[in-house]
Amino acid sequence: MNNRRDEEISVKPLLACLRGARFERPPVWLMRQAGRYLPEYRAIRSSVGGFLELCYTPDLATEVTLQPVRRFGMDAAILFSDILVLPHALGVEVRFLEGEGPKLAPVRTAEAVALLEPGAVLDRLAPVFETVRRVAQALPPATALIGFAGAPWTVAAYMIEGGGSREFPLARRLARQAPATMTALVETLTTATIDYLGAQAAAGAEVLQLFDSWAGALPPTERARWCLEPAERIVRELRARHPEVPVILFPRGVGAGYPAFARLGAAGLALDTTVPVDWATRELGDPALCLQGNLDPIALLGPIEAMLGEARRIVAAMKGRAHIFNLGHGVLPETPVEAVAALVADLKTSAT
Amino acid sequence: MNNRRDEEISVKPLLACLRGARFERPPVWLMRQAGRYLPEYRAIRSSVGGFLELCYTPDLATEVTLQPVRRFGMDAAILFSDILVLPHALGVEVRFLEGEGPKLAPVRTAEAVALLEPGAVLDRLAPVFETVRRVAQALPPATALIGFAGAPWTVAAYMIEGGGSREFPLARRLARQAPATMTALVETLTTATIDYLGAQAAAGAEVLQLFDSWAGALPPTERARWCLEPAERIVRELRARHPEVPVILFPRGVGAGYPAFARLGAAGLALDTTVPVDWATRELGDPALCLQGNLDPIALLGPIEAMLGEARRIVAAMKGRAHIFNLGHGVLPETPVEAVAALVADLKTSAT
Repeated sequence: MNNRRDEEISVKPLLACLRGARFERPPVWLMRQAGRYLPEYRAIRSSVGGFLELCYTPDLATEVTLQPVRRFGMDAAILFSDILVLPHALGVEVRFLEGEGPKLAPVRTAEAVALLEPGAVLDRLAPVFETVRRVAQALPPATALIGFAGAPWTVAAYMIEGGGSREFPLARRLARQAPATMTALVETLTTATIDYLGAQAAAGAEVLQLFDSWAGALPPTERARWCLEPAERIVRELRARHPEVPVILFPRGVGAGYPAFARLGAAGLALDTTVPVDWATRELGDPALCLQGNLDPIALLGPIEAMLGEARRIVAAMKGRAHIFNLGHGVLPETPVEAVAALVADLKTSAT
Repeated sequence: MNNRRDEEISVKPLLACLRGARFERPPVWLMRQAGRYLPEYRAIRSSVGGFLELCYTPDLATEVTLQPVRRFGMDAAILFSDILVLPHALGVEVRFLEGEGPKLAPVRTAEAVALLEPGAVLDRLAPVFETVRRVAQALPPATALIGFAGAPWTVAAYMIEGGGSREFPLARRLARQAPATMTALVETLTTATIDYLGAQAAAGAEVLQLFDSWAGALPPTERARWCLEPAERIVRELRARHPEVPVILFPRGVGAGYPAFARLGAAGLALDTTVPVDWATRELGDPALCLQGNLDPIALLGPIEAMLGEARRIVAAMKGRAHIFNLGHGVLPETPVEAVAALVADLKTSAT
């Protein structure tokens, strides 16, 4: 097993990068690279009834995961799924309505937390692991496969709020007014996330990214408790179970709080759009920590030359660090396919 | 004039603080301290038809500005107004609808920018300056009067979007796709903001705060152009016109980008809830720069003892810096009046 992994690293730039290797041209993938901006994605999406059905049908989820790699030749595929399949597998009603955000049956009491079904998660998410297996077999040899999950705070925030929100006031309030309930919910999610990510690794995911999309809604003290502690435990337990699979943390919006996430033992740290790259290279600890990011997805809607200029400035500023090129947030649905093509091609060929 | 100002500083802790003085107990005011959480505010609000009518009626705006100072004894009053009175005075239709955010007639083209009426701003905002004059006369001698405006990028973002937004995609997109239009809009707003804040200072405002509430929606390069440059110009020109009136910058959400705002020559820098105070005291430049903040307003909804503990930790971490205590964001409408009373009383009396 370890031998096979070592061989893979030698031909997969993204995995080498997560072990600290520096490349003249950084490996690249884009958050939400499989999605609505692609006509071939929209064709498949319109052929199924619901978004969750797409996530839970290995044939379709595999195809959708592979589409951007086939079209653009990114250095990694990321499993097509959603962070809310975990609460769904815990027994929470989750609906994705066209044109609206996701809606969840709210979980706001100790009783509701006690009704969650962590024992059922791995069985219910079996189709996701089947997708991981199929993608792993289908990928070109130099392309890495990334699995992912939402971080406990972010998933808890959706569960408490009952959907998306600008600032998640109900979740932030519950964390303060009912810390025992919040602790129970976050611990349930932390354990389930470790099991879920561990099973993705066992099925063939070579990298695991933890999306804490709403970490920025919490002040530093609350963030330490609800984001840093669970992330540290997830990194530690995954390393024990799958030492060959690096973890990338993405604590979106934490700004000056990034250094605390750089010290949790993860192999990679994804930077959101707001982070100045020169600050990051200076302040984010060990130069062996691989930094990922952080072009603004809006740049892909603007003139292509200006966008390429920004991308090159990020690459230049990351010189000397292990760097995986990415956006600082997901690809927007209105992104022109040509802009993504131009970006990936430029990163693979431009003089640096 | 300068003599009078010097005398005032000697009895107004908040002004002394903005000149670098350190206090055992920091002066305190709270963003949105005049607002819906106060029954006496709701009584006045329900007596007028519209929110803008309240802003433009000096009798009522003066009363509402004074209410929290009268009840809690903060060290400063902040003019009751809204950042969107500036686009309104520029000729843009602005409506505040109950239970929804503000709605503006969108400004998205060079033609629409050219139709703005900067020459009319000071006349149209005369009632605001009258409110400033009345509040200045009514305040207790130790209480400072803070005027404010929205920063050009934030006001432009509302104007382009036509209202509030989670991420202001239209404004971010326009800035990239039509930089000449964006430049014209931001320059118009910058000049109008300097005039508007200058007139507040002339009417008696002793401190001016610039709210860049959506600075965090921009990546660093865009932020340099649309936030830092205008803020630097506003600080510089106000200093030339009113050297005795300190400016506080509030670039919400910029995280690791805060140090760049600390170097613009402003007397104070307001920290949002996400900023770790120990990081701020270490990284934010000259110890004479006064830091303001940054308790999470959600803490005021939780148990009072826990909230006071957090407030005291912020005060303790700020020791050695000029510090004005504040929240990291505005007081929430559902905040219990007793929580605000307990916070202000504790800051004024607790052993430190």
